[in-house]
Amino acid sequence: MSFEYGETVKITLWGTSHGPEVGMMLTGLPAGESVDMEQVQAMLNRRAPGGAHRSARQERDIPQYLSGLKNNVTDGTPLRAVIPNEDVRSGDYDARRTIPRPSHADYAAVMKYGPGVDLRGGGVFSGRMTAPLCLAGAICEQILARRGITVGAHLAAVGDIDDRPFDPVAVDQASLLALRRLEPPVLDARAGAQMLALIAQAADGHDSVGGMVECAAVGLPPGLGAPLFGGLESRLAAAAFAIPAVKGIEFGAGFSAARMRGSEHNDSFYWHGGAVNTRTNRHGGILGGLSSGMPLLLRVAFKPTPSIGREQDSVDLATGENVRLAISGRHDPCIALRAVPVCEAVMSLVLLDVILTPSEPAAAPEAGEMAPQTPP
Amino acid sequence: MSFEYGETVKITLWGTSHGPEVGMMLTGLPAGESVDMEQVQAMLNRRAPGGAHRSARQERDIPQYLSGLKNNVTDGTPLRAVIPNEDVRSGDYDARRTIPRPSHADYAAVMKYGPGVDLRGGGVFSGRMTAPLCLAGAICEQILARRGITVGAHLAAVGDIDDRPFDPVAVDQASLLALRRLEPPVLDARAGAQMLALIAQAADGHDSVGGMVECAAVGLPPGLGAPLFGGLESRLAAAAFAIPAVKGIEFGAGFSAARMRGSEHNDSFYWHGGAVNTRTNRHGGILGGLSSGMPLLLRVAFKPTPSIGREQDSVDLATGENVRLAISGRHDPCIALRAVPVCEAVMSLVLLDVILTPSEPAAAPEAGEMAPQTPP
Amino acid sequence: MSFEYGETVKITLWGTSHGPEVGMMLTGLPAGESVDMEQVQAMLNRRAPGGAHRSARQERDIPQYLSGLKNNVTDGTPLRAVIPNEDVRSGDYDARRTIPRPSHADYAAVMKYGPGVDLRGGGVFSGRMTAPLCLAGAICEQILARRGITVGAHLAAVGDIDDRPFDPVAVDQASLLALRRLEPPVLDARAGAQMLALIAQAADGHDSVGGMVECAAVGLPPGLGAPLFGGLESRLAAAAFAIPAVKGIEFGAGFSAARMRGSEHNDSFYWHGGAVNTRTNRHGGILGGLSSGMPLLLRVAFKPTPSIGREQDSVDLATGENVRLAISGRHDPCIALRAVPVCEAVMSLVLLDVILTPSEPAAAPEAGEMAPQTPP
Amino acid sequence: MSFEYGETVKITLWGTSHGPEVGMMLTGLPAGESVDMEQVQAMLNRRAPGGAHRSARQERDIPQYLSGLKNNVTDGTPLRAVIPNEDVRSGDYDARRTIPRPSHADYAAVMKYGPGVDLRGGGVFSGRMTAPLCLAGAICEQILARRGITVGAHLAAVGDIDDRPFDPVAVDQASLLALRRLEPPVLDARAGAQMLALIAQAADGHDSVGGMVECAAVGLPPGLGAPLFGGLESRLAAAAFAIPAVKGIEFGAGFSAARMRGSEHNDSFYWHGGAVNTRTNRHGGILGGLSSGMPLLLRVAFKPTPSIGREQDSVDLATGENVRLAISGRHDPCIALRAVPVCEAVMSLVLLDVILTPSEPAAAPEAGEMAPQTPP
Repeated sequence: MSFEYGETVKITLWGTSHGPEVGMMLTGLPAGESVDMEQVQAMLNRRAPGGAHRSARQERDIPQYLSGLKNNVTDGTPLRAVIPNEDVRSGDYDARRTIPRPSHADYAAVMKYGPGVDLRGGGVFSGRMTAPLCLAGAICEQILARRGITVGAHLAAVGDIDDRPFDPVAVDQASLLALRRLEPPVLDARAGAQMLALIAQAADGHDSVGGMVECAAVGLPPGLGAPLFGGLESRLAAAAFAIPAVKGIEFGAGFSAARMRGSEHNDSFYWHGGAVNTRTNRHGGILGGLSSGMPLLLRVAFKPTPSIGREQDSVDLATGENVRLAISGRHDPCIALRAVPVCEAVMSLVLLDVILTPSEPAAAPEAGEMAPQTPP
Repeated sequence: MSFEYGETVKITLWGTSHGPEVGMMLTGLPAGESVDMEQVQAMLNRRAPGGAHRSARQERDIPQYLSGLKNNVTDGTPLRAVIPNEDVRSGDYDARRTIPRPSHADYAAVMKYGPGVDLRGGGVFSGRMTAPLCLAGAICEQILARRGITVGAHLAAVGDIDDRPFDPVAVDQASLLALRRLEPPVLDARAGAQMLALIAQAADGHDSVGGMVECAAVGLPPGLGAPLFGGLESRLAAAAFAIPAVKGIEFGAGFSAARMRGSEHNDSFYWHGGAVNTRTNRHGGILGGLSSGMPLLLRVAFKPTPSIGREQDSVDLATGENVRLAISGRHDPCIALRAVPVCEAVMSLVLLDVILTPSEPAAAPEAGEMAPQTPP
Repeated sequence: MSFEYGETVKITLWGTSHGPEVGMMLTGLPAGESVDMEQVQAMLNRRAPGGAHRSARQERDIPQYLSGLKNNVTDGTPLRAVIPNEDVRSGDYDARRTIPRPSHADYAAVMKYGPGVDLRGGGVFSGRMTAPLCLAGAICEQILARRGITVGAHLAAVGDIDDRPFDPVAVDQASLLALRRLEPPVLDARAGAQMLALIAQAADGHDSVGGMVECAAVGLPPGLGAPLFGGLESRLAAAAFAIPAVKGIEFGAGFSAARMRGSEHNDSFYWHGGAVNTRTNRHGGILGGLSSGMPLLLRVAFKPTPSIGREQDSVDLATGENVRLAISGRHDPCIALRAVPVCEAVMSLVLLDVILTPSEPAAAPEAGEMAPQTPP
Repeated sequence: MSFEYGETVKITLWGTSHGPEVGMMLTGLPAGESVDMEQVQAMLNRRAPGGAHRSARQERDIPQYLSGLKNNVTDGTPLRAVIPNEDVRSGDYDARRTIPRPSHADYAAVMKYGPGVDLRGGGVFSGRMTAPLCLAGAICEQILARRGITVGAHLAAVGDIDDRPFDPVAVDQASLLALRRLEPPVLDARAGAQMLALIAQAADGHDSVGGMVECAAVGLPPGLGAPLFGGLESRLAAAAFAIPAVKGIEFGAGFSAARMRGSEHNDSFYWHGGAVNTRTNRHGGILGGLSSGMPLLLRVAFKPTPSIGREQDSVDLATGENVRLAISGRHDPCIALRAVPVCEAVMSLVLLDVILTPSEPAAAPEAGEMAPQTPP
C-alpha cells in the first residue's frame, strides 16, 4: 500500500517530479458534497514554489478534474485530478545519475529498484507528490468543515526560531482560519519575520534549514478513533511520515512528557458548559487513541532540505570511487515553510477517513449497570 | 483494523486486562522456523511486572500455544497463543466506574462505547495488551536473526536522566544483545542506577515519571521499504503508537534535525569495505522511507503513568458533579522501564512484515543506461 | 487472505482435521447482540457427522467460547471459539503419505508446501474446517434475523434426484425456518427419501455421489451491495468456493439463463402493496450486484466425495511409480447432505458483512431532478 | 472495494458509460515488462461494438496511456490509461429516468443511491466498464505469457447452440491462441455460423439471447493458490461476477459433477513424462483451491441482454403507476459474444495477481519424514 492510504476514504497518488504530471484519486467520498474550487486553489497556492523564500521552480499548480465531480459537487464515483508539471528542467539532474545526493532517497532507491531508476527531481520521492496530497486534503477539509471540524497549522519553528505555540486549550476555529491568509503562517508575526530572515540567510549561504509544523483540529467530538493499531496517533503518524523530510511526530506534550511527573502531566477533568473538559491539554486531545473532545494537537519535525549548493562528499556507484558532488537546480531553503498546508491536508484526509470508517466496537454495557452519561 | 497490524505477517490481538487472558494470532509466518521458547519467555520476563520498580501485580506470563507450532517449529498455519491473567483484582477498580481517571482512556472510551464499557484495569486500552505483542515480537525477532538482522532497545531517559545514546554509526549486534540481560537495560550503568532511584522516589511520592526508549536495528540490507505511505517510518510509527502511553516518535536526528542546517545534517557517503556507508547517521538508517543499510534508529517518548496515588480532580459522569479522585490499585511508577522489550518487539514485528511483503516496484532501468552498482 | 474473509465482519479460521481442534474468530460484530447457544448448537448438529448417511466419525462439536461474549451477549471484542476434535484416528491416513488421493487436494498441496505437509484427514483442506464456519454463520444468522433477514437452504439434488426448487417469488421466512428441522432438509419429502436411498446405495457400493444445495435469503431491502467487484454475486461466490468440494455456483436462473431469450428471462416490475416487485424472479434477487428486494436465490454444486472405498489409480511421489490405492477411513458418501447448513452459514456471514460495510457511493442526485421515489 | 480488485496486482476502474471516458489503473505490476500495444488493441477490438451482431455504437476504443510506461515498458509506477467515450447519445436514455428497465440495475441503483443517480447507458453498471478491464487483462496476459502461461476463451454456447468444449486434457497454447483470430471465437466453425444466425434472428425479433463462455489457462505450475478463501475458484469467481450479466460460474465438471458418482468423477493420477498428470480433468485443473498443473477450465453463464426492443411492463417510480416501457437505443443482441475477451482478460488479471502474491504457508515438513517429491 505504498501509493495508497485510507480505509473508507482512500487516496491513491501517482506521477513523479519530472514526468508530465502528478495526480491523485479519492474514493469513498460521500456523494453530494460541494467543492469550492477557489479554496482548493488557495491551499495549492500556499504550498506552491516561487517567491523569495521558496524554490524558484515555476508551477501554477492548476488542477484538472477528470472524474467524480458534477457541477463541482461530488458524484460519488472516484474523484480523479491531475496537476500538470509545467516547469521541468531535467537537465539540472542528469549529470549525477550515478552519484547519490547525501541524505536524499537516491542511494536507497537505487539499491531497491536497480541502477536505472528515474530519480530526476526525486522521482516518486519528490516533494512534488505533496501537491496532489494538498489537493485531496483541501477537498476533505471542506467536507470536515460542514461537520463542524476545522483543521489548521502554523510554522512552529525554523532552525532555532520558535513561533508561539497554539494555546492547547483555547485554540479555536477563528485562529486556525486566520493562519491560512498569512505568509509565513505564524502566530507571532515577529518570529515569522525572523524565520524568513533565517531562511534567506541559509539560502544565501548555499545551505538550507530545518523546521517544525504544529497542527490543530478543533470541533472533534469525543470518542473518535479506535484502540491499539486503529488509534488516532497511529493513523495520523502513518500518513504524516509519507510527507518527504518528516523525521518526527509528537502529540500534545510529546517528547517533553517523557521528562514530566504524572502529577505534572495529567490533565484533570471538570464540567464546563454541560460538557466534560480538561483544564490543561497535555494529552493533545487524544486519550487511548481516541479523541477526548479537546483540541487535537501535533507537531511534525522537518529536516533541512538535503539539496544544498555547497559541495559535499559522495560516492560514484558506477566507478566505485569517492567523489565530490555539487548540486545545482532550484531548491527550497526550508521545506517546512511549504509543508504547513501539506500537514493541514494530511490531517484533514486522515480525520475524514476516521469519521467515515466504522470502527471496532468494544465491550457492551451490562444491563442496569450505569447511570446517565451526560450530567443531569 | 484496530486489533490487527501487518500486510503479510499479520498480528491480531485480543483479551483485556481483567478478563481471563490476553492473546495473539500471527498469520503469514514462514513455515519451518524454529522458535526458542526460552528466548520468548525471556522477553516476556523483561516486560513482566514485579520487583521494586514495577507494578506489584503478580503475573508469570507463561504463554500457552494453541496452534501453528509442531515441535516448536512453525507449521505455517496461524500461530495462536494466549497468556492467562493470573492476578486480577477487579475490586481495585470497581468503585470509580463513573469517574474517569485523568489522562487515561476512560472518558474517551465511555464517549465512544457507552457507559457500560468494561474498563477495569484499562480494558483493551491496558498495557497488559503488550504482553501478547511481546510474545509475537519475540518470535519475529528470532526469524529476523536468522536473516542477519538484530533488533535492540535501551531505556534512553527517565525524567531528566539520560542514558548514553546508541552510537549511530557503530552500534552493532553484540551491543544490542548485551542489553537484553541488563536491568535496567541501559548503556551507562551509572545513569541506570540514577533512573531506578528516580523511579523509586516518584513511587514513594505517590507519583509517576515519564521516559524514553531508543531502538536500533542492524543488519538491514539497503533498499527495504517503499515510498510514500509504505515508508519504514510510516509503518514503524503506526505500530509504535499502538503501545499505550506513547506520545512521540522520531527517527535519526528527529526533532533536533528541525534546528539544523542542511550542511550540518546531511550524512555524506563513502566507500567502506566494498559497500556504501555514511560517515554520520543523522538520517537514522532511513532515506525516502527506505533502509539505507546504516543502523536504523528511533526514539519513542512515553508519558508518565497516568495512574498516580495522589488525589486528582475529575468528574462524575453519572451525577454531573466535579469530584476528587484517589486511585488505589497497583501501578507502574514508570511505564518506559517495562516498555523497552515492547518497543523491541514492535520493531521486530514491523521489520519482519516489511521484509516478507512484496512492495511496489518503481521505475525500471533503461537499457544500457548504467554501469555496475557495486564497486569494481 | 487465505484463512480470512470479510471487510467489516471478518472471520479467521484455524486448525486442521487431525489437530486438537478447529476454531474461528469473528471481529467487527456489533456489541450487544445476544447469542442463542441452543440455536448455534442446532446448526452445528445439522452439519455433524454420524448416522446412517454420514461419515461414521464421532464428533459432538461442542464449541468452547474463548472471548467476545459476556453472558451470551457480544461484547464487541473479537469473538473466538474452538471446537475440539474428539475422534481423530490418524492411523487411517498414515499409510499413503506419498500417494495422493485422486481428486483430493493432496497432490497440489504437496507441490505447494513440500513433501512434509501434514494432510492427515485433509489438513486445512478438510471439510472439518466448515464446523467453525457453521459456528460463525449461526451467530451471524441470529444477528440478521433481528434485522428482518432470514436465510435458509435445502438439499436441491443428490445425483439425478431433484428436490422441488424454492418458489422464486413466494419463498418466505416460514418455509426457510421449517427446513432447519428436517432430515434431509428438502421441500419434497418423497424426493428426500429417494435421496437417502441413493446415498445409502452409493455407500454400499463403496462409492459416493454429488449433490446440489439451493439457498435463499428473504427480507433483504433493495439496494444492498455495490457495483463491479463489490457485487453480491462476487462476495457470495468468493465465500462459497471456500467450502471444500464446491465446483459451481449460479444465481437466479443461472446457467439456464444462457439458453433463454431476453423476452423470456426479463422480470417485469409492478407495484405491489406500495412497493416495487417483480412478477418472476429469474434475476435471483440481484440486479447489477445489488439486492432487488426479491428473494435472493443461489445454487451450489458439490462434487461427489473424492474418498471412495474402491481401488483407484494413483502415483507414488516417493518412488515415481504408478500404484493402486485403496482408501480406508470414514467418509461421507454425499458431502452435499452435510453442506446444507454450511451454505446457509456462509450466506449469513456474507450478508451480515455486506449490511455492515459502508459501500462506495455513486452519482448524487441533481437538485430538482426527481419526483418521489416511493409511490404516492 | 467495489471499484478495485487484487492483492498484489491491483486494478481500479472508473468512468461511466455516458461520461467522457472509462479508465483503469494497475498497481503492483513488475517493472521492466514490455507491452505490445498492437496486442492490447487487438483484444480491445475483439470486445468492441460494431458489425452485424453487436451494438451499433461506434467506439474505436483507442486507449491513452497516462503513466506507468516508458517506451512501452512498465516502469513500476501505477499504470493508468483511459479510453475516451466517442459515441455517447444520452438522448436515447433520457426519457425513462424514473422507469427502471426490467432486469437492469436501474431499480436497485435508485434504491441504493437515490433518485438522482445517473444511469444513462447503465452508468457504472454498464458493460462499457469492461473496456478498461480488457485493457488491463491484455497487459497481464502478456506478462503471463512470458512466464509460460497462456489464457484463452471461446463462445461455448448461444441459446441452445453449443460449441464443442475444450478438450479438458489436451487443450494447449496453440489452440488458445488460434481462437483470438476467429469471429466468432469458436472451436466448431459450423456451430459458430449457427450462433451468428441465432443472434441475428433474436435481433430481428427485437429480442436478445443468452450465452456461455468457456475459458482455459495452460502452463500453470501445480500448487498455485491457497486454501479456503484464497482458493483459485474463490478468486476467479469474485472477479468474473464483476462482469455485467454473469449469472453463474463452474469449474471443471461443475454442475454436472453434482450428478456423478465419485468413481465416475475422480481423476486418477499417473506419471507422464516425468510429471504427475491426470488421465481425465473433471477437476478443471483445481484441487483444494490450488492448481494441479492440468489445464484450468471454467465456464461462465451470461444472461440475455436485458435491453430489448419489445415493450415490457415496468413501474414509474415518480408516479407510483404501472406502465409499459419500450427501450430504444443501441444494444447487443448477445452480450456473451463480446464477453469472450473480457473473460480472458479477467482470468489473466486474477492469475497474474495469484502468481505474484505470496500466499499463506502451510504445515512444514517434519525432518526425515519424506522421500523425494519428484520421481527418480
